[in-house]
Amino acid sequence: MIHRKAADTVPAPIETGGAEGIRYARLIGLEHGAPNVILRHFFIDEGGHSPRHAHPWEHEVYVLSGTGSLTTASGETRLAPGDSVLVAPDEEHQFKAGAGGLGFLCIVPPEGDAGMNSEKR
Amino acid sequence: MIHRKAADTVPAPIETGGAEGIRYARLIGLEHGAPNVILRHFFIDEGGHSPRHAHPWEHEVYVLSGTGSLTTASGETRLAPGDSVLVAPDEEHQFKAGAGGLGFLCIVPPEGDAGMNSEKR
Repeated sequence: MIHRKAADTVPAPIETGGAEGIRYARLIGLEHGAPNVILRHFFIDEGGHSPRHAHPWEHEVYVLSGTGSLTTASGETRLAPGDSVLVAPDEEHQFKAGAGGLGFLCIVPPEGDAGMNSEKR
Repeated sequence: MIHRKAADTVPAPIETGGAEGIRYARLIGLEHGAPNVILRHFFIDEGGHSPRHAHPWEHEVYVLSGTGSLTTASGETRLAPGDSVLVAPDEEHQFKAGAGGLGFLCIVPPEGDAGMNSEKR
């Protein structure tokens, strides 16, 4: 059993292409023995956004705090705490933060987390 | 893209062997096209608990609200909002709720959710 306290997994700023104002913490990763998927915590500062992109893996998302939106080919969906989202494999998408920023969990298979820095977080 | 609003996924009471005071909602499941894992929301009422059991799949857990504990062969670990946990495959475990109940997300591969009722939730 691995137990990571909230204070040990506070999202910290990262730089990835096309991202602005994003913080990231890996909560449960391969280094903890995760067999199937990686559990990550993101926080996007007010006015920030993720890259608009697509990739072969899915996102399963749970909104923790704040306000924001998810844009796909279908348009813009407003997000609120307690909402959950499935972004399908190969679906173009972009998260944007509104007032107060946007905090959420994002679950991906291991290949979806491989490019992230902050390896020790 | 699947978007499920918080109001559409409020955990409702379930009965599973050895469980007491547990509510459950499937947030993202096979019926939504989840390719790898199922995202579920549990709430255990104050004084309630999950079965003490083990199974071949892992749990990845994120604590949303309340107080409680996780008991494994290593003893009892107290849980608080923002904590994350990996219960390894075949590891015996039991969640218990303290004052105010315990709310958490629990991520499992599809075989770990197959026995759950509330199929339409």
